[in-house]
Amino acid sequence: MATFCGSRYNNNELVNDKGIVMNQPKMTDVAKKAGVSPTTVSRVINRRGYLSTKTINKVEAAMRELNYRPNMVARQLQSQRTMTIGILVPTVANPFFGELTYKLERDFFNAGFKVLIGNAENDVEKERLYLQQLLARQVDGLVIATHNHQQQIPEYQNANLPIVSIDRYLRASIPNVSSDNYAGGRLATEELIARGAKHIIHTDSVERFNKRDYLRQQAYQDVMNEHGLTPVTYKIDFGSQPELMRQFFNRILDEHPEADGFFASNDMDAIQLLQTARQREIRVPEDLQVIGYDGVPTTTRIVPELSTIVQPLDEMAKVAVDILQREINGERVTGSHNLPVRLRASASLKQ
Amino acid sequence: MATFCGSRYNNNELVNDKGIVMNQPKMTDVAKKAGVSPTTVSRVINRRGYLSTKTINKVEAAMRELNYRPNMVARQLQSQRTMTIGILVPTVANPFFGELTYKLERDFFNAGFKVLIGNAENDVEKERLYLQQLLARQVDGLVIATHNHQQQIPEYQNANLPIVSIDRYLRASIPNVSSDNYAGGRLATEELIARGAKHIIHTDSVERFNKRDYLRQQAYQDVMNEHGLTPVTYKIDFGSQPELMRQFFNRILDEHPEADGFFASNDMDAIQLLQTARQREIRVPEDLQVIGYDGVPTTTRIVPELSTIVQPLDEMAKVAVDILQREINGERVTGSHNLPVRLRASASLKQ
Repeated sequence: MATFCGSRYNNNELVNDKGIVMNQPKMTDVAKKAGVSPTTVSRVINRRGYLSTKTINKVEAAMRELNYRPNMVARQLQSQRTMTIGILVPTVANPFFGELTYKLERDFFNAGFKVLIGNAENDVEKERLYLQQLLARQVDGLVIATHNHQQQIPEYQNANLPIVSIDRYLRASIPNVSSDNYAGGRLATEELIARGAKHIIHTDSVERFNKRDYLRQQAYQDVMNEHGLTPVTYKIDFGSQPELMRQFFNRILDEHPEADGFFASNDMDAIQLLQTARQREIRVPEDLQVIGYDGVPTTTRIVPELSTIVQPLDEMAKVAVDILQREINGERVTGSHNLPVRLRASASLKQ
Repeated sequence: MATFCGSRYNNNELVNDKGIVMNQPKMTDVAKKAGVSPTTVSRVINRRGYLSTKTINKVEAAMRELNYRPNMVARQLQSQRTMTIGILVPTVANPFFGELTYKLERDFFNAGFKVLIGNAENDVEKERLYLQQLLARQVDGLVIATHNHQQQIPEYQNANLPIVSIDRYLRASIPNVSSDNYAGGRLATEELIARGAKHIIHTDSVERFNKRDYLRQQAYQDVMNEHGLTPVTYKIDFGSQPELMRQFFNRILDEHPEADGFFASNDMDAIQLLQTARQREIRVPEDLQVIGYDGVPTTTRIVPELSTIVQPLDEMAKVAVDILQREINGERVTGSHNLPVRLRASASLKQ
């Protein structure tokens, strides 16, 4: 269930239905239509200087309406490309973002770009500092995979540079690449039910500005309700210390001795539950079946018994790199690009 | 057992033992002594253009002999700093290099530098491509933590840019930051013996151009011999597929049913052994005690029972960033900087 939405300029000659080449619109036509100066149009095209979102939208609407195609060669010369991309993640020390950064860098390298990285951690001010530096024309484009609340970061609203986000919403005109979180949540819950689980507990992150976990939880609730089962969701602060995590999972199992299935919105939580189950001598999968989410190769190599919903990181990196290159080349790309997930069934599920 | 070796220029005025300020040597004095032109001296100081190792060594020897101190302000203006550092690792998808890259980037960011990363994988040609790009004055300095054989990469012999390497030897004039691998190997083996193990198996990597594993193995052998015990080392190709790894560790346990201790030169191997032991219903730590190596937080969080020799990644990053900044500021730093390790004792060791 992959959805691709994107508007792009026509790269062919403008030809009408009788095969006659029509007059190409000029930059001055766009300026007139948008009610701005040609200099402003040029700045929008070349993504230079600070422009209000309103101005950008007005100029882009006029360009679409007139099917105006900027002169690419001139644009490239003028834009002083750095052939450098900035990638912001919470931290490459997390295996998910380490794997994602590796794949993004590999694909950008093959496309001729260097990659600057920033570990914004969970620090709004650090993310803003990175953005203020990188938006000052030090990079040709940005990949944003951080987890801070975008409303606390005004730079995203004014950013006038090609951006693609991974798994988060920044603003309507910035394209977003995700795996299909709703489909993943459904798949996990349906598999647990199909293998006999009836009392399925779900855990997800307390972050609510990130739609990702919300969709996984929504899917879990929908499937449970469709089967006449009672959904039970616990919220976890992802950055918690190991000791707090142990207490948390023990509490879940204390409060729900009837639990025979468990769907965690990330693999670290699922692994913590597997450890807790082992300490309590609960048999997995006989008495408790477990599915996590993410499926990063390093993690499943360390814990091969973990069943999990595998995010297509290879594809996500590939699509993000493709979108950003198209944006850098002057196309306007928008929309959510949801890539299909798959189940990795292993020893934590019944056969 | 930390060893710091480094020569640096005197940053004070030249004052003789009677307190009289002496004549400062000039660049022309250095040129005369080295038998080269002043331009060549300038190029060595500013690390510009291609110079033979012989010329660099000659000029640096003359500078040391004359205690010549370049004019730092002029040097900085002349050197057109990019305030950018390049970091080359095998891949940030590996938790060890993900953690290291995170800490390096964090410390460079705090020092005002941006960080370009390259995942050289185990590909000599890819590493050479990165170097050819980065050495062309795109960065102020490089951190090299890759695992390819430096003799296949002539760029390191001619590189005329500040470099610090992590855990590997590149050439005599390039400083190297490591944890104390010999002390770590000793500590692991001595702990297993102190807790009653007598038949201790050791695994390490097949890479031999990397001194790291060699020192761990050497320490293991020395301690075993000191205690009148027989060392047994198996070599593993680190990149092996999970199925081959399973077969490999099963073979070790088939061939050594008497094994009661196990020291792996990296945590991934130790974790694989823990899995194999569990499948064979060998009790850990009662019948088999296990110590790994690296101690990356992500890994020990996923496998909390793992006992391991913890590399001081925080300190290693801090020292590497400090050395590189000193090199960028015109100091010459050389030598091996070995930082102390510690044992993380957990459930895979007897109390």
